[in-house]
Amino acid sequence: MHPLDEATYLAPNGSCAYRGRTSDAYWNFGGPFGGVTAATLMRAVLDRKNRIGDPCSVTVNFTAAIARGAFEVAARPVRTGKSVQHWYVELRQADVVAANATIVCAHRSSTWSHKPTVAPVAPAAKSIKPMPTDGRNAFVEQFEFRFVEGALERNASFDGRLRSARSCLWLNNALPRPWDFIGLTTFCDLFFGRIFHVQGTVFPAATVSMTAYFHVDAEGLSALDDGPLLGVADANVFEAGFFDQTAQLWSDNGRLLATTTQIVRYRA
Amino acid sequence: MHPLDEATYLAPNGSCAYRGRTSDAYWNFGGPFGGVTAATLMRAVLDRKNRIGDPCSVTVNFTAAIARGAFEVAARPVRTGKSVQHWYVELRQADVVAANATIVCAHRSSTWSHKPTVAPVAPAAKSIKPMPTDGRNAFVEQFEFRFVEGALERNASFDGRLRSARSCLWLNNALPRPWDFIGLTTFCDLFFGRIFHVQGTVFPAATVSMTAYFHVDAEGLSALDDGPLLGVADANVFEAGFFDQTAQLWSDNGRLLATTTQIVRYRA
Repeated sequence: MHPLDEATYLAPNGSCAYRGRTSDAYWNFGGPFGGVTAATLMRAVLDRKNRIGDPCSVTVNFTAAIARGAFEVAARPVRTGKSVQHWYVELRQADVVAANATIVCAHRSSTWSHKPTVAPVAPAAKSIKPMPTDGRNAFVEQFEFRFVEGALERNASFDGRLRSARSCLWLNNALPRPWDFIGLTTFCDLFFGRIFHVQGTVFPAATVSMTAYFHVDAEGLSALDDGPLLGVADANVFEAGFFDQTAQLWSDNGRLLATTTQIVRYRA
Repeated sequence: MHPLDEATYLAPNGSCAYRGRTSDAYWNFGGPFGGVTAATLMRAVLDRKNRIGDPCSVTVNFTAAIARGAFEVAARPVRTGKSVQHWYVELRQADVVAANATIVCAHRSSTWSHKPTVAPVAPAAKSIKPMPTDGRNAFVEQFEFRFVEGALERNASFDGRLRSARSCLWLNNALPRPWDFIGLTTFCDLFFGRIFHVQGTVFPAATVSMTAYFHVDAEGLSALDDGPLLGVADANVFEAGFFDQTAQLWSDNGRLLATTTQIVRYRA
């Protein structure tokens, strides 16, 4: 089993609930990497037999710290329409809701299409050396980061120089894994906090809420096999303890797979 | 009472629930304007005495059609931390959940700040003629739209020419109203569907989910009095029945107030 499937594994626990367990392999500062938590909530919907269509949007709120160990996840369909279905998901640990999510699934249909935004120009993933991942939080070692632009610096502290909030990079699993919505959801949170890029130093900061829209269905994802994704991330404002973050994930052949935003709490 | 306050008015109905009623003044194609629905869910949290801080993020899912008439709204705090509080809100009509929301409130703190994104350059609101709002869906008449760029065309049908998905415009209430989170939430959904701009024609399309991040607190909003907001909206992809939409709302004096995204279902 791939480490990401182990980390997001859910054992049935009643008709609409599951039991899971945090993964040391994807540990971040003082808690699991948020992308894996988001993917775990997504799995609770993907595993449901009464699901309609494929995920189309997800909002995950990181409501409390998650401790090492077991947790429960419950998912309920809030509303099932003819082709769109809305889910509400909660992850609880010791009676505290530590994360929740609203997830929309939908049958896509054949329509007029238009793609005004095009993929950034970037050299091939293979031509760029991956960032060394040793000596960082555990989850970082599970992935490959090949920076095209806006690499992550690692100074001991902020020197006062404001660097760009924008990064462009190739991302992939360190151990290859075919693409699905577990992987895509995880990768929506795989952009390092923009504050680290601006300040050139890494420190604890907590995503409060993340939203992702998916522009591909299961079949389209599966056609990508386990190839790298091109990511672009940026930020608009850092103020009063919160910054926003926007990102796009593209396939190797220039298809926009996901657009995502998050709001992150910081002390600096 | 301002029409927007009438439209979003909630009467207490038990300890954590409210009763509301749709407003003909803000009617859209076959249902209430989504911005007012979003603001109604926001009001259910704003009205709660056990609320901590000001809204920081909101995701609203439009889960079913809302019919003319009464509805119930229930809000519960999912998790209350020291300075961040997570709410889950549902709007029900005849036992169907017609909208739900997750809302994050927070005490903001004094931190290092940085604002890499600056407001678009635009002529003063007063120098631009408002778009005529007569003969459109009722809600349009409640607002002023002064297009700087990317005006809304109104052709009978799509002529095949692809127009820009980007608009820049001054927005305000037709009847002046001081800014608060009811107004700001409403305006996050006040950008016409990008598909109408691209195709140059207007037809029914339904927002499935909208997320907004607020970069201002109640005091900062109140300082804006009832002045116009500068909005910018764009889209990345229209495909298989869904398009995304991104937008920013700026104050008259160049402060970023909100960033927002939504995913919209279309048939075309």
